[in-house]
Amino acid sequence: MAKIFAYGIRDDEIPALNQWREANPEVTVDFTDQLLDPETAKLAEGYDAVNVYQQLDYTRETLTALHEVGINKMSLRNVGIDNIDLDAAREFDFSISNVPVYSPNAIAEHSMIQMSRLLRRTKALDAKIAKHDLRWAPTIGREMRMQTVGIIGTGHIGRVAMKIAQGFGAKVVAYDLYKNDEVEAQGLYVDTLDELYAQADVISLYVPGVPANDKMINAESIAKMKDGVVIVNCSRGNLIDTDAVIAGLDSGKISDLAIDVYENEVGLFNEDWENKEFPDARIADLISRENVLVTPHTAFYTTKAVYEMVTQSLSASLDFINGEKPSIAVEY
Amino acid sequence: MAKIFAYGIRDDEIPALNQWREANPEVTVDFTDQLLDPETAKLAEGYDAVNVYQQLDYTRETLTALHEVGINKMSLRNVGIDNIDLDAAREFDFSISNVPVYSPNAIAEHSMIQMSRLLRRTKALDAKIAKHDLRWAPTIGREMRMQTVGIIGTGHIGRVAMKIAQGFGAKVVAYDLYKNDEVEAQGLYVDTLDELYAQADVISLYVPGVPANDKMINAESIAKMKDGVVIVNCSRGNLIDTDAVIAGLDSGKISDLAIDVYENEVGLFNEDWENKEFPDARIADLISRENVLVTPHTAFYTTKAVYEMVTQSLSASLDFINGEKPSIAVEY
Repeated sequence: MAKIFAYGIRDDEIPALNQWREANPEVTVDFTDQLLDPETAKLAEGYDAVNVYQQLDYTRETLTALHEVGINKMSLRNVGIDNIDLDAAREFDFSISNVPVYSPNAIAEHSMIQMSRLLRRTKALDAKIAKHDLRWAPTIGREMRMQTVGIIGTGHIGRVAMKIAQGFGAKVVAYDLYKNDEVEAQGLYVDTLDELYAQADVISLYVPGVPANDKMINAESIAKMKDGVVIVNCSRGNLIDTDAVIAGLDSGKISDLAIDVYENEVGLFNEDWENKEFPDARIADLISRENVLVTPHTAFYTTKAVYEMVTQSLSASLDFINGEKPSIAVEY
Repeated sequence: MAKIFAYGIRDDEIPALNQWREANPEVTVDFTDQLLDPETAKLAEGYDAVNVYQQLDYTRETLTALHEVGINKMSLRNVGIDNIDLDAAREFDFSISNVPVYSPNAIAEHSMIQMSRLLRRTKALDAKIAKHDLRWAPTIGREMRMQTVGIIGTGHIGRVAMKIAQGFGAKVVAYDLYKNDEVEAQGLYVDTLDELYAQADVISLYVPGVPANDKMINAESIAKMKDGVVIVNCSRGNLIDTDAVIAGLDSGKISDLAIDVYENEVGLFNEDWENKEFPDARIADLISRENVLVTPHTAFYTTKAVYEMVTQSLSASLDFINGEKPSIAVEY
């Protein structure tokens, strides 16, 4: 009987883990909330494969410890493999898989919900209501259907975002270096980013954080946008020159901003800073603004995404055990 | 030259008023932020028509004062005419118009934004972020596309809401006594409310507050819904038995609630209760809950809706002055 040992299981992963167990009754899945390190690697003794998700590095020591208890199959429940010592993994002939696509909708939905919230000024309105000021004026909203929504990047996530914007009745214009046939057939592409900046009331980013896109939203590009533009970034923190965006908010050129990512987010997001000195004055400032929504890289974080991460990775673990190569095996 | 005098103009109405002025340069539009009463009626002397929006009653005294300065044309920027003394209006041969439809999208969008926010637990997440707790777990969201959205009432607003839900990729089921051809063609109707209650993960109301619908969401109907149902009401406050819904929230039967309307909202909503004794313990309780979003009848309140209210009513004023009957003239 195949036996998988899973590390770092959070409470919100347990329902998906149990669903996978029920669908695969011939497999034993045991787990711990502890992370995988040279010490906890011993827990995997007697199992056929490990299943993992952590920011903590998969060091040579950790992989050696797994090797010593006979484990050379490791399936990640997330996408990033940059914290694995791949030289060591090669040496011990590790089979590795990750989950590159879990839910494009999770991120697309979040970006459009935040956009619609900015337009509707929900942060200001919620604050009024919380203190029992139930007057509606002057907190007037704008409608999604009245906006020209500029989508930069028409990969899977950007295209889901476009459908949501269109469902609201918004006009969509899109830009991408690599054209998608369906978007092209709808006639939604503009030829240049400058055209998109000139037309869009609201701009949302869905491009990778590759060097060519680094700080693409900067003082120069912001100057080309409409006065009172709304900007949403749920893609990568380095796409935005944060100082330039703050200057745009201060001048009123940018009316509202939503970010789920930040150029200096590592070590800042997914930490609890309550009652501690907050280490980033820019983010503290943005969080406090009524026309800014900051979320700490939570756009991906839905029950559907977690279900996919858990179940796809467990199935990959089982494939490895059965001597098969899962479609999500990592070539390294 | 036609001359219109507008009362009770709010700051957020001025842009629309100026747009109408620019489009109608041959007409003089003057205005005040004061409401229309027997005293301020004198301000309309020398004008051809008045344009109004207020909760304050249009009494016999007020209409007499208008009559005495030669005014018998009154265009309302809102829909409700129940605060007009119609006997007096008849006696003085008043021509009256209102704005029955200004923006169904304003309300449909708000209802779907609030629904998506509940699913995404933005209230809990926003509160964490405000106090600098940037951990994402355990505040996990649900995706709109994974939901079966039950739409009760498929008039104009309900149908816009359906399109938004479909844009998110949600499955939509609908119920209405009066079937809409387009919705029927899509095969979205269920035959009974009980069927909708059995199928829907999320239920949103778009029916009028007529006696037959009074407290349709009550202990009995809630019992027929799925465990963990989400309920959204941006229609009329009397559709919901508030005590039954609070009991459902307390038991966990209802996981989340958004209301923009409330059975006892008159005299409560659109008032500032900050630093005053809040008069409604149930609403204070609901406002304080992490899984409840209360808005004080603001769903309609968008720049587009206000634009329509101002410009349609000014055009009706002008029609009356020109001896024409606007399509939005009130028959009384």
